[in-house]
Amino acid sequence: MKIITSIDELKTIIRKEKQNGKQIGFVPTMGYLHDGHLSLIEKASIENQFVVVSIFVNPTQFGINEDFDVYPRDLERDQKIAETGGANIIFHPTTKEMYPTGYSTYVEVEKITEKLCGASRPGHFRGVTTVVAKLFHIVTPHRAYFGLKDAQQVVVIQKMVRDLNMDVQIVPCPIVREADGLAMSSRNVNLSIQDRKSALILSKSLLRAKEIVVAGERNAEIILTQIKEIIATEPTVTIDYIEILDFERFEKIDVLKGRVLIAIAAKIGKVRLIDNIILEDLLYTTPFKSYQTNCGKYCRQNY
Amino acid sequence: MKIITSIDELKTIIRKEKQNGKQIGFVPTMGYLHDGHLSLIEKASIENQFVVVSIFVNPTQFGINEDFDVYPRDLERDQKIAETGGANIIFHPTTKEMYPTGYSTYVEVEKITEKLCGASRPGHFRGVTTVVAKLFHIVTPHRAYFGLKDAQQVVVIQKMVRDLNMDVQIVPCPIVREADGLAMSSRNVNLSIQDRKSALILSKSLLRAKEIVVAGERNAEIILTQIKEIIATEPTVTIDYIEILDFERFEKIDVLKGRVLIAIAAKIGKVRLIDNIILEDLLYTTPFKSYQTNCGKYCRQNY
Repeated sequence: MKIITSIDELKTIIRKEKQNGKQIGFVPTMGYLHDGHLSLIEKASIENQFVVVSIFVNPTQFGINEDFDVYPRDLERDQKIAETGGANIIFHPTTKEMYPTGYSTYVEVEKITEKLCGASRPGHFRGVTTVVAKLFHIVTPHRAYFGLKDAQQVVVIQKMVRDLNMDVQIVPCPIVREADGLAMSSRNVNLSIQDRKSALILSKSLLRAKEIVVAGERNAEIILTQIKEIIATEPTVTIDYIEILDFERFEKIDVLKGRVLIAIAAKIGKVRLIDNIILEDLLYTTPFKSYQTNCGKYCRQNY
Repeated sequence: MKIITSIDELKTIIRKEKQNGKQIGFVPTMGYLHDGHLSLIEKASIENQFVVVSIFVNPTQFGINEDFDVYPRDLERDQKIAETGGANIIFHPTTKEMYPTGYSTYVEVEKITEKLCGASRPGHFRGVTTVVAKLFHIVTPHRAYFGLKDAQQVVVIQKMVRDLNMDVQIVPCPIVREADGLAMSSRNVNLSIQDRKSALILSKSLLRAKEIVVAGERNAEIILTQIKEIIATEPTVTIDYIEILDFERFEKIDVLKGRVLIAIAAKIGKVRLIDNIILEDLLYTTPFKSYQTNCGKYCRQNY
């Protein structure tokens, strides 16, 4: 496995591999790879004959008061993990290589980027779509692999690809979790031991939400209230947002139906984490919707 | 020559031609082709084995009070001209094909788009870069040909391609003029007979500016004043802007040096026209710079 830092050099290599009939798989990352990334690299290696992993902590997707400076980095470790997964190339450009002096072009997906992380982190998705568009032009992959922990990111990238008629298949991959349920994230390393324990409340609350839905609940407000109540048991956890959306339209819903995303962002100490659950089919139990009576009590109503 | 309206169909054709080793030349246009376009198509046919001409009056690059509705259209005529030039495909999509319901992704080049036509036509270049990015992804050309009448457009597209690491060579081509000097433009057909005569003042003033520079003048203000005085002799012509820029940095200059762009936009009746001249080498005569004395007179000073 080679580490390439030059855009032109990578383009030349890719051109040659394509001429030899190889299909290119691509896993864009910000490095400090974990088992979530590894699962993407492994899938890319199964489905393609040549796999590029990019490692680039992209400054344009961080806000001025965010954690760009403390975002964890460890290229040596990343190299081993990427190699284990079957990567052929690590693309590790400098900021100067990606954004030379005078750089001034941006790709922006509107509307769906105004919600969730887009609302909390202005400019974040503009940074993401710009760097991913650049990387797609550099790597020209047949398939690109993204983890569903950043569910909104997947939806935004898919929209960009469709709108701009790019020729790449976006492959969303399931969240990989620690044994105790914490969604894997490069940022987890920045949690204190105590905060690492508190952070568990995010996945716990989502699991509880799933149980409620499986049991038949379809009222979004009831579910959100339950999630909030569970998270409130950890006073060091500050909720940024909790939302329930229709995953296709990416719009808030009052009543759960079809493919639904329950997404959370929260700060645990200084670390901002996100987690979510996608409920694919809500119709395998008798659904009901709770409603509030005049006297304030919730009652169940069957469909 | 085929007319294709479907993005997917065109992509399939291009893929096949590329597999057969053909290089793809691309001429993006808004149709109503003239000899300027023809020169681009002919050059594309010489330099590539397969040539696509797109004809799409792109709504997103027109402002709300601009001439989208009256922009001239004549596909049958365009077909003959494109065929004469050696085009293999006309790509003529509907607006719905290019911007389906819910479309929301835009490509934007900042800074250099704030000047000249960018200042007069807010959002214009965002529309241009977005549609050109889409067309580049659809056609995936080796080379794309643009006329230098829209000099700023050429600079903006080149910047987008460089910044976003796109794999396409931009080929700028010289302005083609009518026998009497008027720069060819699809919009010329919307001029009344009288306005057609008045419009000549644009190219005349630029030719005069060139003469002054060749004679040795290097003071931008003096040259601009002369251009304005010449255009003022046609009272029906309203100047939008006249500017002198360093063509590489795309910044206003006080003293002419190196590669210089003198650009004009003006309204003749209801029709907005642009014209320009690029002065490549200003050093073949003894240059001088005019300066204003305290009493208001201009004097010459040798370098």
